[in-house]
Amino acid sequence: MPTYKLTYFPVKALAEPIRFLLSYLEENFEDYRFEREQWPNIKPNMPFGKVPVLEIDGKVVHQSTAISRYLGKQAKLVGKDDWEALQIDIAVDTLHDFRQVVANYWYEPDEALKSKKKEEALAGPVPFYLEKFDQLAKENNGYLANGALSWGDLYFVAVSDYLIRMLGSDYFEKYENLRRLRDNVVNIPSIKKWIETRPESEL
Amino acid sequence: MPTYKLTYFPVKALAEPIRFLLSYLEENFEDYRFEREQWPNIKPNMPFGKVPVLEIDGKVVHQSTAISRYLGKQAKLVGKDDWEALQIDIAVDTLHDFRQVVANYWYEPDEALKSKKKEEALAGPVPFYLEKFDQLAKENNGYLANGALSWGDLYFVAVSDYLIRMLGSDYFEKYENLRRLRDNVVNIPSIKKWIETRPESEL
Repeated sequence: MPTYKLTYFPVKALAEPIRFLLSYLEENFEDYRFEREQWPNIKPNMPFGKVPVLEIDGKVVHQSTAISRYLGKQAKLVGKDDWEALQIDIAVDTLHDFRQVVANYWYEPDEALKSKKKEEALAGPVPFYLEKFDQLAKENNGYLANGALSWGDLYFVAVSDYLIRMLGSDYFEKYENLRRLRDNVVNIPSIKKWIETRPESEL
Repeated sequence: MPTYKLTYFPVKALAEPIRFLLSYLEENFEDYRFEREQWPNIKPNMPFGKVPVLEIDGKVVHQSTAISRYLGKQAKLVGKDDWEALQIDIAVDTLHDFRQVVANYWYEPDEALKSKKKEEALAGPVPFYLEKFDQLAKENNGYLANGALSWGDLYFVAVSDYLIRMLGSDYFEKYENLRRLRDNVVNIPSIKKWIETRPESEL
């Protein structure tokens, strides 16, 4: 069994999909969470100055989505052929487009501009994306692609606490097919166990 | 042979990697370029309201990176195993992080803020990324990953005109390993032919 060490801030956000996938694989992993004040010392040692970073048998890899796809292959959660793998990739990249819409106001330092940007996002793009994702989950029987569980579903649910915190409202309450998607993921025994035992964090 | 129809603005930008890969595969494709004024009519018919969109035998797929990875698989440009595929995925997602740094000022509507953001980006993050990418190309013998040509190299070179236009300077002049990378891609006969015959566009 490979050894895994994950390095990230003490939050879920972009590391949580990796934690979900390692849990799904029933792999032990070191879940190293550094405090914000340590970041200036850690950042220069990270490839491209970013986290999450995963060490697999001491070899360092980065990029949340790329790592999740890699682990998804180990878990046989990448669809049955290249076409199905493409549908999963499309869903995850579109989730990141949605995340950009939300992050665009969330990380705006100017408070007045932040309010304005948030208002604009919530008035149009946010419900647009959520409705489209809900439709996708409806068409795919409670999953994002191919009518079956994939690493994309784990990704979507793993980052949802982060997105919901930035949005200020829980989209699983409003969108029933996204709720089905969430339930399909959180009721997987290995994921359920991870969620019950993971450290508390707001994001 | 499948039929392909690509739909995008009349520019290179995020569609050009798909055009590179279809050219590399020596596939004929309809390269449908709509004018900006047509966009409001086209947008509602696009999945998630975005382009590029590719129709493969009439089936619609979207997301530039996801499509390029899929075509990269057809072209056998995805590395020899899952680990190599991961290295390529990391490079491409990091390229998108870099693109976000540049797009963050380029698409800023407020002119004063745009100047300020551009100055900050050019003072730090932009050379940081370019030096890291140059180092990566050096370590990989003029490629981004695994010391061999991949769809990631085609992606990097295909979007470079767009990035260079937004940056206002040609990084291939300054970074010799990125220049090697570019030359490795543009000297592939099928890519060379595409570049010589493609429509002119600024981005």
